[in-house]
Amino acid sequence: MTRSAPQNSVQQTHAGNKAQVQQVLDRVKADGRGSLSAPEGRLVCDAYGIPVPKEAVATSAQDAVQKAESMGFPVVLKIVSPDILHKTEAGGVIVGVSSGQAVAEGYEQILANAKSYKADARIDGVQVQQMLKGGTEVIIGAVTDGSFGKLVAFGLGGVLVEVLKDITFRLAPASREDALSMLDGIQAAEMLKGVRGSEPVDHEALADIIVKVSQLVTDFPEISELDLNPVFATARDATAADVRIVVDFAAKPTSEARSQAEIVAGMNRIMRPDTVAVIGASAEAGKIGNSVMKNLINGGYKGTIYPIHPKADTILSLKAYRSVKDVPGSVDVAVFAIPAQFVAAALTECGEKGVAGAVLIPSGFAETGNDAGQQELQEIGRRYNIRLMGPNIYGFYYMAKNLCATFCTPFDVQGQAALSSQSGGIGMAIIGFSRSTKMGVSAIVGLGNKSDIDEDDLLAFFEQDDSTKVIAQHCEDLKDGRSFAEAARRVSKKKPVIVLKAGRTSAGAKAASSHTGALAGNDRIYEDVFKQCGVIRARSLRQLLEFARGVPILPTPKGENVVIITGAGGSGVLLSDAVVDNGLSLMGMPDDLDAAFRKFIPPFGAAGNPVDITGGEPPVTYQNTIRLGLEDERIHALILGYWHTIITPPMVFARNVVEVRDEMRAKGFEKPIVASLAGDVEVEEASQYLYDHGIPAYAYSTELPVEVLGAKYRWARGAGLL
Amino acid sequence: MTRSAPQNSVQQTHAGNKAQVQQVLDRVKADGRGSLSAPEGRLVCDAYGIPVPKEAVATSAQDAVQKAESMGFPVVLKIVSPDILHKTEAGGVIVGVSSGQAVAEGYEQILANAKSYKADARIDGVQVQQMLKGGTEVIIGAVTDGSFGKLVAFGLGGVLVEVLKDITFRLAPASREDALSMLDGIQAAEMLKGVRGSEPVDHEALADIIVKVSQLVTDFPEISELDLNPVFATARDATAADVRIVVDFAAKPTSEARSQAEIVAGMNRIMRPDTVAVIGASAEAGKIGNSVMKNLINGGYKGTIYPIHPKADTILSLKAYRSVKDVPGSVDVAVFAIPAQFVAAALTECGEKGVAGAVLIPSGFAETGNDAGQQELQEIGRRYNIRLMGPNIYGFYYMAKNLCATFCTPFDVQGQAALSSQSGGIGMAIIGFSRSTKMGVSAIVGLGNKSDIDEDDLLAFFEQDDSTKVIAQHCEDLKDGRSFAEAARRVSKKKPVIVLKAGRTSAGAKAASSHTGALAGNDRIYEDVFKQCGVIRARSLRQLLEFARGVPILPTPKGENVVIITGAGGSGVLLSDAVVDNGLSLMGMPDDLDAAFRKFIPPFGAAGNPVDITGGEPPVTYQNTIRLGLEDERIHALILGYWHTIITPPMVFARNVVEVRDEMRAKGFEKPIVASLAGDVEVEEASQYLYDHGIPAYAYSTELPVEVLGAKYRWARGAGLL
Repeated sequence: MTRSAPQNSVQQTHAGNKAQVQQVLDRVKADGRGSLSAPEGRLVCDAYGIPVPKEAVATSAQDAVQKAESMGFPVVLKIVSPDILHKTEAGGVIVGVSSGQAVAEGYEQILANAKSYKADARIDGVQVQQMLKGGTEVIIGAVTDGSFGKLVAFGLGGVLVEVLKDITFRLAPASREDALSMLDGIQAAEMLKGVRGSEPVDHEALADIIVKVSQLVTDFPEISELDLNPVFATARDATAADVRIVVDFAAKPTSEARSQAEIVAGMNRIMRPDTVAVIGASAEAGKIGNSVMKNLINGGYKGTIYPIHPKADTILSLKAYRSVKDVPGSVDVAVFAIPAQFVAAALTECGEKGVAGAVLIPSGFAETGNDAGQQELQEIGRRYNIRLMGPNIYGFYYMAKNLCATFCTPFDVQGQAALSSQSGGIGMAIIGFSRSTKMGVSAIVGLGNKSDIDEDDLLAFFEQDDSTKVIAQHCEDLKDGRSFAEAARRVSKKKPVIVLKAGRTSAGAKAASSHTGALAGNDRIYEDVFKQCGVIRARSLRQLLEFARGVPILPTPKGENVVIITGAGGSGVLLSDAVVDNGLSLMGMPDDLDAAFRKFIPPFGAAGNPVDITGGEPPVTYQNTIRLGLEDERIHALILGYWHTIITPPMVFARNVVEVRDEMRAKGFEKPIVASLAGDVEVEEASQYLYDHGIPAYAYSTELPVEVLGAKYRWARGAGLL
Repeated sequence: MTRSAPQNSVQQTHAGNKAQVQQVLDRVKADGRGSLSAPEGRLVCDAYGIPVPKEAVATSAQDAVQKAESMGFPVVLKIVSPDILHKTEAGGVIVGVSSGQAVAEGYEQILANAKSYKADARIDGVQVQQMLKGGTEVIIGAVTDGSFGKLVAFGLGGVLVEVLKDITFRLAPASREDALSMLDGIQAAEMLKGVRGSEPVDHEALADIIVKVSQLVTDFPEISELDLNPVFATARDATAADVRIVVDFAAKPTSEARSQAEIVAGMNRIMRPDTVAVIGASAEAGKIGNSVMKNLINGGYKGTIYPIHPKADTILSLKAYRSVKDVPGSVDVAVFAIPAQFVAAALTECGEKGVAGAVLIPSGFAETGNDAGQQELQEIGRRYNIRLMGPNIYGFYYMAKNLCATFCTPFDVQGQAALSSQSGGIGMAIIGFSRSTKMGVSAIVGLGNKSDIDEDDLLAFFEQDDSTKVIAQHCEDLKDGRSFAEAARRVSKKKPVIVLKAGRTSAGAKAASSHTGALAGNDRIYEDVFKQCGVIRARSLRQLLEFARGVPILPTPKGENVVIITGAGGSGVLLSDAVVDNGLSLMGMPDDLDAAFRKFIPPFGAAGNPVDITGGEPPVTYQNTIRLGLEDERIHALILGYWHTIITPPMVFARNVVEVRDEMRAKGFEKPIVASLAGDVEVEEASQYLYDHGIPAYAYSTELPVEVLGAKYRWARGAGLL
């Protein structure tokens, strides 16, 4: 885990006080303790400017009154004596003391009680503490996640967190914007805005504590857990009433992080190689080494292919070599098609040859319990700086090089989507779907056991790969969620990143763990971190595929105003439902625009939004309304609902939509358009035509087109384009 | 709205006290008031046995002590004086009085205060009231919904209802089971089971209040709103601390309800007619009256068709008549294909002829603001007892009679699903989807403006229609939700009822209202009532269609134990997620069964559940494990995850699954099976093959097969079969 750079503003304020925290932690470590005492917790909070109740020790009644008056009433009075452990039992605590006189009386009372409880007790004074009450109780905390590292958490106190699990997380350190988004990120966010006549809480004060907590745990990774519970939030401030800090001084193994440039250079040699060796190339049909050779040759790869085989002179008419070390020139990547037990030796030879990457198709490693075998490969990889893809994978496809380095079915539909999967079955589904829908891909990559190359390496490669416009990844775990998040945050600003995280549910996570030995974390953490990093989360396999297909072809919207134009009123209603379900906003229709639409539709059609042009209309009504929708700058995206009639048949509608879109695009008006087609089977052909022309369109579905538009919007928002 | 028969148990207990409530309401009505006073509310609660705090008026200190002791401490003391309005101001209220002595002192104190406040005040005594505290605050209420009538509501007090809208509804009267299901039906249900060390609340006590409230509002429809807020629920009892009752004495228009037999008889004549007249039949291609004629003739309808036309002698070789009244024999149904302004006159002629039903294709009625025109049709319909379908519809298809009484595309794929839609566009989507997937239907019906025939009439017909195995309805509103709910509750016990309620969201509801003038109610009410009535709710158009396709062909499961058998570990994880998402339960695998599965799979395959047979396996591994899954009586449903490999190609897998299923069915083992196929495009053919053989199967999707299985389970549970 790399320690992230601290934020400047917080850093400036608190740099001077890091020493104070270090002192406290050193003492805890020296004592061999696992947590901080309450006064130590208070010291840490003070050092980072986290507000806690004011408190001071008074040594006379008059002193107590002065101190209480400076804090504000009410206060709590507590005996301070090393000889009195059970303060309450000794009559040494008085709560809710509300006036100067009461403080003076309380002071004397406590002293009297203490003396009668234990006559010889040493008494150091009486602690006067600001008593917090009223306001809204919230919880601010920090945890250390096995994959994502330090996370800051926020929720409402009491049942909302405990029963409804209404809590939200962000990677630490969190920015002020991150922190403010957490206040809106809980289900009961409305509570903070003032309900039942109460005042809204001070959002900035809460955000400030969140930022400081996130900075604290980032500065001191040995703080493994932190809880401010409750924090009393009022309209004017926020104060942590109780602090709990747990520490873990055990040194964490930190993986040697590669530089960004190093990752990209390595990945480029693997994904765009000039030379490929096939270890275990075979002339025998049905063998994996034969399928790989055929796919490389038939796929049209233009680089040099070196079959490696212990005996053969040629394989599929290509000169074969006994070992990769015998190959005359350099070898960029070696595809392994040999049984598990021979992989380590061949990999070592690759290392000696200076091969950049190994595509480890063989199974029989960690996924079958052979952890030692996999570790051996990892050690060889590290020793020789060979990047490892797999093991236990189908290989990969990289279309710009016509490269099918896989034993699966060949694939040749060039497109803009780079997909990857942790599982082979999902990889095959990607291939089938891509071929069937003519989606086309720039690459498909199997990650399998992820002994080395994982999702963030692919992000780094596809970020700078010109043939890729969208990145869609299926994963069951993230071995280094922190690195993934950092890469995703950067890459998603340029290209949409879509992730299907399998093992969302505890049953799914259990299955994930039996599958790859991966421990799925709390799904809420994935949810929040993905959002924080601008990742579009797919909820299902089909969504991953549909988003990969539709998101890159949609233009980026310039604003949030969505308009539905529909021939079928019934589709309009369902499309409106889908708009809300997908976090989109139906534009409130301005009067002049409403009037403009009305000119094109029958008097009984409903303008407003949806614009219901009614079912019996000729093609020109669709054309006119869609043209207006594209032309008016206040509208940012169109959802079309088509109703199959004899007057406007499906293909007429489809061609008209594309024509109007092209006409308006030539005039500089470009907006995302999606379409739902209701009708007889001809609407399937029309939908495919629309899709082929850059308009995601679906037959018999009002929800899918809006989901795709919603995904584009989520990306645009996350990338700061909206 | 029909007043439902009261439940016997409650009835017996409270029949004697209905008079008491009636007295209170009579007084409120006589006073011209819209709500009850607190003492009146208390009287009503007493009459129905709804627990409220005990209270009594004491006339001496000793009397007060006795009364307080019999109620239990603490109590509240309040002055009772017609001359003291502001009791608190007069020092006339003391709360939290905790002992007999304190009560005696408090009594005297209050009297003294009262006298010093107003020396000449008449003092009737001091009210001693049980003081409720502790326990969990809940809300029990009742509302009157425009469509569903009386509903009882339950939620937790405070922010949970107000901010999180965590509230649940049931039709009144509610049974004890209904009431208990409400306690589990809120998000924060765990709160009632005891959290943070608190005791669980008395569920029976709460259910009892819910049942009584639901009975009260059923017995007295003039009670339009009722709120018990808060009700204090403890481990031993539940008591309503505050009662608010709003009344509305305005007479509600009650629609003359047809008897079940009458509805069925009428619908049978319409849906299965011997004779059909086409009003506005035309020989001219492109006219609606021509399309209807062609569809009737070409569809293969075996009954008699009478074209009605003002001038023609024959139309499409069939003898035409000037008026429906000129037709020699009786006419079961008349299909209207004439402009709106001529409909009323022709409908009157149909009435005079004794036609049973009118299929009103013409638009131009309520949907265009012509409410008067539609009311006129309704009046004619009532006068002559003609059932009206529409207006503003595409007509209907009834396959068992080869009857296409519609102007849309002809349809001839016979199946088991009866579908209906409020909107024409959705009707066309039904036709396209059915044809494309070879789903087949028993009927497709357009309901349009629903001037008469609506969803419950269709339910009554399809309930007794042998060609229908599942009923799937798209609706934007329910004009009489109460009748729908009663019909659905009955019908869903026999045949699955699936409903896509459009206008779920406020944006959708707004669009629905612009479309048909329908006011969509609170979606949560639909959600809860559908569940109460065993209706399977579809979340999207595609779900409605997929459920209609898949649910009827699946055998009914005999229990909740679902097992996943998968070749792709990655699919297993996603299928597990889908299992949880769809409310299904992965069976905990017994050791002996685990061992039995392990015999068939490679040593590194994962048994447990999912059973991961791994990807490289031959067909026999799928066969053996599926056979075992069907044979073992502890397993109730199978989800298959297929991974396309050369060793087991898609069609081999598909044929094997069907073979094993048939083999086991012959031995008496029949269970629902669904399948997810990951692979290249050949999996599409294999999926269709499986579907054609009774196994819902989907390519490139892990979620759809499980959604279909989940729908079957929801139905089976609702119908009491599980």
